[in-house]
Amino acid sequence: MNPRLSLNQATIKHADLATALSLTAEAGITSIGLWREPVAEVGLGRAATMVSDSGLRVSSLCRGGFFTASDPAERARALDQNRRAIDEIATLAEAGAPGSAPVLVLVAGGLPAGDRDLASARARAAEAVGDLAADAAGAGVVLAVEPMHPIYAADRGVVSTLREALDLVCDLPAKVAGVVVDTFHVWWDPTLPAQISRAGAEGRIASYQVGDWITPFPGDALLSRGLMGDGHVDFASITRLVLDAGYTGDVEVEIFNQELWDADPAQVVARVVKAFDETVAGQL
Amino acid sequence: MNPRLSLNQATIKHADLATALSLTAEAGITSIGLWREPVAEVGLGRAATMVSDSGLRVSSLCRGGFFTASDPAERARALDQNRRAIDEIATLAEAGAPGSAPVLVLVAGGLPAGDRDLASARARAAEAVGDLAADAAGAGVVLAVEPMHPIYAADRGVVSTLREALDLVCDLPAKVAGVVVDTFHVWWDPTLPAQISRAGAEGRIASYQVGDWITPFPGDALLSRGLMGDGHVDFASITRLVLDAGYTGDVEVEIFNQELWDADPAQVVARVVKAFDETVAGQL
Repeated sequence: MNPRLSLNQATIKHADLATALSLTAEAGITSIGLWREPVAEVGLGRAATMVSDSGLRVSSLCRGGFFTASDPAERARALDQNRRAIDEIATLAEAGAPGSAPVLVLVAGGLPAGDRDLASARARAAEAVGDLAADAAGAGVVLAVEPMHPIYAADRGVVSTLREALDLVCDLPAKVAGVVVDTFHVWWDPTLPAQISRAGAEGRIASYQVGDWITPFPGDALLSRGLMGDGHVDFASITRLVLDAGYTGDVEVEIFNQELWDADPAQVVARVVKAFDETVAGQL
Repeated sequence: MNPRLSLNQATIKHADLATALSLTAEAGITSIGLWREPVAEVGLGRAATMVSDSGLRVSSLCRGGFFTASDPAERARALDQNRRAIDEIATLAEAGAPGSAPVLVLVAGGLPAGDRDLASARARAAEAVGDLAADAAGAGVVLAVEPMHPIYAADRGVVSTLREALDLVCDLPAKVAGVVVDTFHVWWDPTLPAQISRAGAEGRIASYQVGDWITPFPGDALLSRGLMGDGHVDFASITRLVLDAGYTGDVEVEIFNQELWDADPAQVVARVVKAFDETVAGQL
């Protein structure tokens, strides 16, 4: 078992927190990426105890963000939600085994309904990260901006490229704001090698997530990710770029895929371990 | 009727060439973007006569390209097909009304089966355009490289951004090699304003196509385009950028959409005219 493998909880979406923690540990995986919803189901205090008891590291919390609203009240609510998420990951990373990462993954959010001004939505996302920086610094949390595949630019994540994410955080301290490199989202980018190097040089790689791009494209854009090896992503090359850029953290497997979600989660975990071993672990 | 509107034949896919020409002319549209398949159905000579009789301009021919094969024989076949396409658009543009554009739209093609080396596939696409340059120059044709939305990077078009397309053609004369700006493919790009300006300054905008990005994303990635106004694209801003960059050619409406393909083509043409009028024409 590669010690840097982390199972992102979304890969076994229908497992509750207790199940996700025990399946991960039983498989010999030593790290987990958590999601806010299953944590909220048991409450933060109880979740922290469960994480502590599991002996697992926490590699990130998904997810904050969704702060592109132009309506002030809606924007204030989004910032408030993000402040709670900052507290949550601070607590959970503290409860996790040594080597846990207080990383909050941020998905920018899409265009407000009827709004076609992408540049302004992007500017609001940047402003929101700035507004959260003091809270993150106070809690010792890293805000990790995740560039999302351009397929999501309209309705989910207006930050589309690694370059854009790096530009967005460049005025904030690297201890407070970084980026997520997720192969599914960035594999196609012709400037990827240069931007991963830049991200490393600027100390910004807060999280490295892996998932494959599969074809034909599944019907639901949200569930279009595949296990590593099932698609077109060159994991060896991208993983090498990330390592060469100095990333020393856990590598999260995060896959939204209906077939995986419908399968027995213990079997999914086993498949994740095997796929990771065949595509990523050799580089680590 | 705006005189710069051109109907790309793919928008009424199931109409044959005769029908497409007559519906376009009857609607008062003065320009058409042709596809190779319906031209081949009647033969090039007959198609040229029909185009000439229609009184329409020809704004482009779709499409050449698909030259990312690593197998030498397959690559040679692809280049041969592209040379035929060059001859076809030269003939068709000659047959069209004055103002016709001898523009061959090139779609790079995807990764060969089982091949995950995107950088090499991109390099082969660049090499292929170079290999066709002399033929294009001889025929007076512009090879127009179309950057495709990253959703197609694996299986259809490895050239993903306008910047990449411009870099790809930059060593060739602008009279021979340019780019297509298609709103559907590039609307999300945070560097779009800079790259459209650059494309104009370098004399590379060979074609401007419009189509909308709609959500939720339709089940079939190939049929995911919408009529202008039905989605998230800011046509006023992008059209202004293209005009400010000096583009003076026709504006093609190219929409792959099952609902449009299933509808009565005459009604589709009427809807195209209305949508163009409401979203693009005001800038022209």
